[in-house]
Amino acid sequence: MSGRSVAVVGATGAVGREMLATLHRRSFPVGSLRLMASARSAGTSLDTPWGEVEVEDLAEADPAGIEVALFSAGGARSREHAPRFAAAGAVVVDNSSAWRMDPQVPLVVVGVNDAAARAHRGIIANPNCTTMVLLMAVAPLHRAAGLESMVVASYQSVSGSGQTGIETLSAEVAHFSQDAAALQYGGWADPGHGMYARPIGFNVLPLAGALAEGGYTDEEWKLVNETRKILDAPQVAVEPTCVRVPVMVGHGLAASCWFSRPLGAEEADRLIEEAPGVRVWRDRVPTPLDCAGHDEVLVGRLRETLGRPGGISLWVVGDNLRKGAALNAVQIAELVI
Amino acid sequence: MSGRSVAVVGATGAVGREMLATLHRRSFPVGSLRLMASARSAGTSLDTPWGEVEVEDLAEADPAGIEVALFSAGGARSREHAPRFAAAGAVVVDNSSAWRMDPQVPLVVVGVNDAAARAHRGIIANPNCTTMVLLMAVAPLHRAAGLESMVVASYQSVSGSGQTGIETLSAEVAHFSQDAAALQYGGWADPGHGMYARPIGFNVLPLAGALAEGGYTDEEWKLVNETRKILDAPQVAVEPTCVRVPVMVGHGLAASCWFSRPLGAEEADRLIEEAPGVRVWRDRVPTPLDCAGHDEVLVGRLRETLGRPGGISLWVVGDNLRKGAALNAVQIAELVI
Repeated sequence: MSGRSVAVVGATGAVGREMLATLHRRSFPVGSLRLMASARSAGTSLDTPWGEVEVEDLAEADPAGIEVALFSAGGARSREHAPRFAAAGAVVVDNSSAWRMDPQVPLVVVGVNDAAARAHRGIIANPNCTTMVLLMAVAPLHRAAGLESMVVASYQSVSGSGQTGIETLSAEVAHFSQDAAALQYGGWADPGHGMYARPIGFNVLPLAGALAEGGYTDEEWKLVNETRKILDAPQVAVEPTCVRVPVMVGHGLAASCWFSRPLGAEEADRLIEEAPGVRVWRDRVPTPLDCAGHDEVLVGRLRETLGRPGGISLWVVGDNLRKGAALNAVQIAELVI
Repeated sequence: MSGRSVAVVGATGAVGREMLATLHRRSFPVGSLRLMASARSAGTSLDTPWGEVEVEDLAEADPAGIEVALFSAGGARSREHAPRFAAAGAVVVDNSSAWRMDPQVPLVVVGVNDAAARAHRGIIANPNCTTMVLLMAVAPLHRAAGLESMVVASYQSVSGSGQTGIETLSAEVAHFSQDAAALQYGGWADPGHGMYARPIGFNVLPLAGALAEGGYTDEEWKLVNETRKILDAPQVAVEPTCVRVPVMVGHGLAASCWFSRPLGAEEADRLIEEAPGVRVWRDRVPTPLDCAGHDEVLVGRLRETLGRPGGISLWVVGDNLRKGAALNAVQIAELVI
């Protein structure tokens, strides 16, 4: 068999399923496939393009013989199990935040810093979905002009919180459709009907992630720290605000960026258009619905800054389950096999 | 009769109705009330707190005797009719964009630049709803430290587009609730089911308003130009991105601001808390649902900038029909009677 021995860890989750679909869609040379998840899902079977496969208990799975392991099982499981998979000879591509800032672990956006992947010691980290979408647009500008500072506001979809996010939004939209007056006349302190601290249906939550140092959320710190590591630009100034919006799939970002030299809108357009995996829309604006279910990241509203001249303001959207997660993980695997 | 002779022009629209409710809620001294609208609505009657009032045709209405006229009938009607109401002795408070940048016309956010109202020559302009909500948070910081630059991304509700925006979002949410797969797996080019160029249901539209100079929309230019006029700070650098989100009522904004001196988060908190009509939330984040139906503008996530030090990043939400429109118009009328 000429194919590789592949494991998908966290196979039953939203990203795990998308990883399986992506391996198939991109004709990744899967010789044999193993699926792993927590004990709760172990013993069930998944119908995959390579036949029905039983899900193994990650805690008890023997990694011997696995060549590529795609992990999307959360930070704690990744911290515990990725090292033993790597020690057994697998290349682990990890979608959690567990290893991203480890100086020994490359953090790779394929199309942006592919060369970093080659220095891996068994584990390669897949960046945060929001950072990944943003950098698909900003990295080509950085390479040409040297990014110095960036102010970013996100419009993040509920699928970034997993399947529970999708179920929460569905439930809340159904609930509020029965109580439209609450949306307009307020006075209303509904705690929500799902996973978020406040309702996301017909609302936006200006705090995505958990609060961390300095009044910033972990999502916001990821935007800062992962941007610096991926661009190999530790001095870049980033002002992040991460906001959850009532969209199912697709993360959007509004960014204003300044560089070590003035950058015009036409040059920025050309630089992004020449980069792989990202496309500039000129005649209409790309929305989350336009990127959902697509591999390409879409950029629109490219324009020169108004107040502090020489910079570029732009809008970018990408499917957070695809380029923001599963697609980039599979692309990393393609780079290293 | 000790009350004033009041006219509400555009009485049948979303803002016009909110103006009537606001006059009543604030016990504005309405001695007599006249309602006006386009010929289409003329002849109908509205049930008001001052009894049933027949709607007059604006084009034929005689303004003699009117002391205060609250206009929310669109820019074209305002340009045509506000001057003849003012010439007849009325103080016109105009909610359209027609007069805002006229150097003879004060542009007033009550609580921010009340003194400007006194120099009126018959017309006072009510600012754009997004700008108004933003400046309730930023003006107190500007007064203390001198605003120099600001990057702003908006999360604007559909009621900012009037009643049709609300109907469009309702229709699209009902439509997509029948076709959830389209939201997740895309490939989907639905032109929308209402007033916007693309769907707003389960989506965000990163272009609020109509495209104008330099790739910026008219909404974005309003944020720039009205901010400069209201703060009397013509050099302030503003980078705006205006985005429509699937929320019924309540505009949110994420802003990063820098001043002529460094400003700490504690000082910023105190400055905003001391200002009228705006409140800082510290233990939880204010969302559009929290401000809908309320007069107060809410500020959250006050924090010091991370990358370019000395600045303040914040989140602010306000009811775009209240402080963003009807409330401020009535407050202006209270200032000048």
